[in-house]
Amino acid sequence: MMRTRPLKVALLGCGVVGSEVTRIMTTHADDLAARIGAPVELAGIAVRRPDKVREGVPAELVTTDATALVKRGDIDVVIEVIGGIEPARTLITTAFEHGASVVSANKALVAADGAALHAAAEANGADLYYEAAVAGAIPLVRPLRESLAGDKVNRVLGIVNGTTNFILDKMDSTGAGYSEALDEATALGYAEADPTADVEGFDAAAKAAILAGIAFHTRVTIDDVHREGLTEVTAADIASAKRMGCTVKLLAICERAADGASVTARVHPAMIPLTHPLASVREAYNAVFVEAEAAGQLMFYGPGAGGAPTASAVLGDLVAVCRNKLAGATGPGESAYTRLPVSPMGAVITRYHISLDVADKPGVLAQVATIFAEHGVSIDTVRQSGKDGEASLVIVTHRAADAALSSTVGALRELDTVRGVASIMRVEGE
Amino acid sequence: MMRTRPLKVALLGCGVVGSEVTRIMTTHADDLAARIGAPVELAGIAVRRPDKVREGVPAELVTTDATALVKRGDIDVVIEVIGGIEPARTLITTAFEHGASVVSANKALVAADGAALHAAAEANGADLYYEAAVAGAIPLVRPLRESLAGDKVNRVLGIVNGTTNFILDKMDSTGAGYSEALDEATALGYAEADPTADVEGFDAAAKAAILAGIAFHTRVTIDDVHREGLTEVTAADIASAKRMGCTVKLLAICERAADGASVTARVHPAMIPLTHPLASVREAYNAVFVEAEAAGQLMFYGPGAGGAPTASAVLGDLVAVCRNKLAGATGPGESAYTRLPVSPMGAVITRYHISLDVADKPGVLAQVATIFAEHGVSIDTVRQSGKDGEASLVIVTHRAADAALSSTVGALRELDTVRGVASIMRVEGE
Repeated sequence: MMRTRPLKVALLGCGVVGSEVTRIMTTHADDLAARIGAPVELAGIAVRRPDKVREGVPAELVTTDATALVKRGDIDVVIEVIGGIEPARTLITTAFEHGASVVSANKALVAADGAALHAAAEANGADLYYEAAVAGAIPLVRPLRESLAGDKVNRVLGIVNGTTNFILDKMDSTGAGYSEALDEATALGYAEADPTADVEGFDAAAKAAILAGIAFHTRVTIDDVHREGLTEVTAADIASAKRMGCTVKLLAICERAADGASVTARVHPAMIPLTHPLASVREAYNAVFVEAEAAGQLMFYGPGAGGAPTASAVLGDLVAVCRNKLAGATGPGESAYTRLPVSPMGAVITRYHISLDVADKPGVLAQVATIFAEHGVSIDTVRQSGKDGEASLVIVTHRAADAALSSTVGALRELDTVRGVASIMRVEGE
Repeated sequence: MMRTRPLKVALLGCGVVGSEVTRIMTTHADDLAARIGAPVELAGIAVRRPDKVREGVPAELVTTDATALVKRGDIDVVIEVIGGIEPARTLITTAFEHGASVVSANKALVAADGAALHAAAEANGADLYYEAAVAGAIPLVRPLRESLAGDKVNRVLGIVNGTTNFILDKMDSTGAGYSEALDEATALGYAEADPTADVEGFDAAAKAAILAGIAFHTRVTIDDVHREGLTEVTAADIASAKRMGCTVKLLAICERAADGASVTARVHPAMIPLTHPLASVREAYNAVFVEAEAAGQLMFYGPGAGGAPTASAVLGDLVAVCRNKLAGATGPGESAYTRLPVSPMGAVITRYHISLDVADKPGVLAQVATIFAEHGVSIDTVRQSGKDGEASLVIVTHRAADAALSSTVGALRELDTVRGVASIMRVEGE
């Protein structure tokens, strides 16, 4: 029962992802038609630089006027792979107003303004899908939004940025420092010329916001996500992790508080045990753990970026949105009914690995231990080593609130015998 | 915009899974209502033994007349967790005829008769969902059916039976033989009193049929799946795998042929390298690799069975089916448009590990190598060892067709110098 009138698709952006989308829509048109129940046709491709040679991209479809394209009125689905806030936001909103559904790969926009976009979609009876915004081809948005819709997710923990994982993997396997590993990532095309969005954790924080919102059925924006990048991670930190049977990963962690009344979302480097499955995620791969009440612990693993994997996620959404169009229905929209507040980082409960440079004299450990006790942070292990009048203390704590740890560290810095806090790193995945 | 009239659900079966479904529907009714957009209510629970005490199951809902329940006419969704072919098949078909959609966890039925069930659903404008039929709570059916709907899946390879993985994991970690490991699995509740369905690979073969059908958009039944259980796997095989840097897993493997014109589906024990992520899947966990043209290699991991995980998958489907009902739409039905034939095992191309007991005299290796060459099977490595007049040859081949390997082994058995074929095991995941 194939409909013969094709569904019309407008593509906004024709870079690495857009050109893969075009290629697959062209070469696999018959498969897409069979799966959708109607042919699907590229009606226009909006680009900034029309003169750029794009192999396999029909020149007659290319336009620089994205606004006119989304306003045409005969467009069924708009695929947005431009990225960034504007003009993407205005184009998507305009698309909804002109009757189109939208498939987007834009993590920054969804993380900043997802609620407004969902509202605009709903007001116009349209779909907004964005599987490609989180972890490339790895199905995460749909499993959280649909497969786990009858379950209660308590935790999402994962590696959602390939660039930083590549850098940390290199540091771990070669002993290189951060700059050296970043240079290699840049040379190999894993890091962009301006790596800020990746190495400062903005990219991962956007994904954490999206995942937390869907997982906990509440609104979480990128501004709610505590964010620390990996630029401060040193070769010494990695070596220290190794001595503990750990490695360092940049993790995105979204958690429901123990009392269920709030959630937290954060991105930061953390030590995880080598026995944890995330420890063996190599190079630019992504992997995400989801812990749900009934399902238990699930893991999703795969390539987290790249043109073809991202295009795969875009096209899966395209098929779903087209099916919905044909059925005269829409898929699941925003689910934010729990209205759970997002607590600040201070409320997060976790463990800490702290390296202190201290004076090499008797009584220092007792002083330090007293500070920890006074702030309610319980110590799990201490390793003391000294040479040449200098000494270091490596302390691993039991689980404590981040705020308590911060006060502890503040107080430690006041001690004359503590010459410096060499590093503080959270310990996760135990 | 919550609808106040509840959607009515009939539950068929109230064992381990059914009672978890009941528990979650009762304790999480508000969440389910918010996610569906209407309250959902258990209208009846069909059981065989009404007198059995079931904590948390409302006695007034319990009936022994499943047929009358599905014929009531006011049931929106039937959840079938009875298992087996009959009466499940008749009840599901009757449910469709009376206007209900169906969520099933019944791998045996879907693998035997999925096409007819899908046709019955479609004829009645109803949904048939069965995420719980494959790998418990791990989202696989939905990702394959929806997330990868715009991609071309070439291979699905995984551990989809927890009982046999538990047994093989014990054999690997303790050196135990098959019977001993099975006894432990039984004692711990991982194996049923009659373990046939698990250890002979029927359960995994049903899942392989379902996964292959969805992945390749064609019809695959359990009869199309080549099936070997793990009852013949010996402690010696496991030790042999270890010497090769491998472990033994019972794998379900669905592949598209290199020319794209056919598919294969099989379940058998195989050696996989310890470096492969499936090698580290412990105890009763499941994990499935999916290789797609654009997405690359994805992995899905989690608990493959158990009441709560299976209930999680059932309830995810329940939410989706209820949303479809409210929208007056149906989700994706059967997609079998490729009509790709399923080739027999002989057409499968893979590698082999073969142990031969041979006479300890010169020229035996030459004889054996000649047989391999005559049948077009190329040898990768040979390890020869001998003691007390007996000798053994351990041969690992390059990739070859299963039919060619079978003829090779047939010819080897004819050689006077070959006293026996101690074991043949495929090598996968390289």
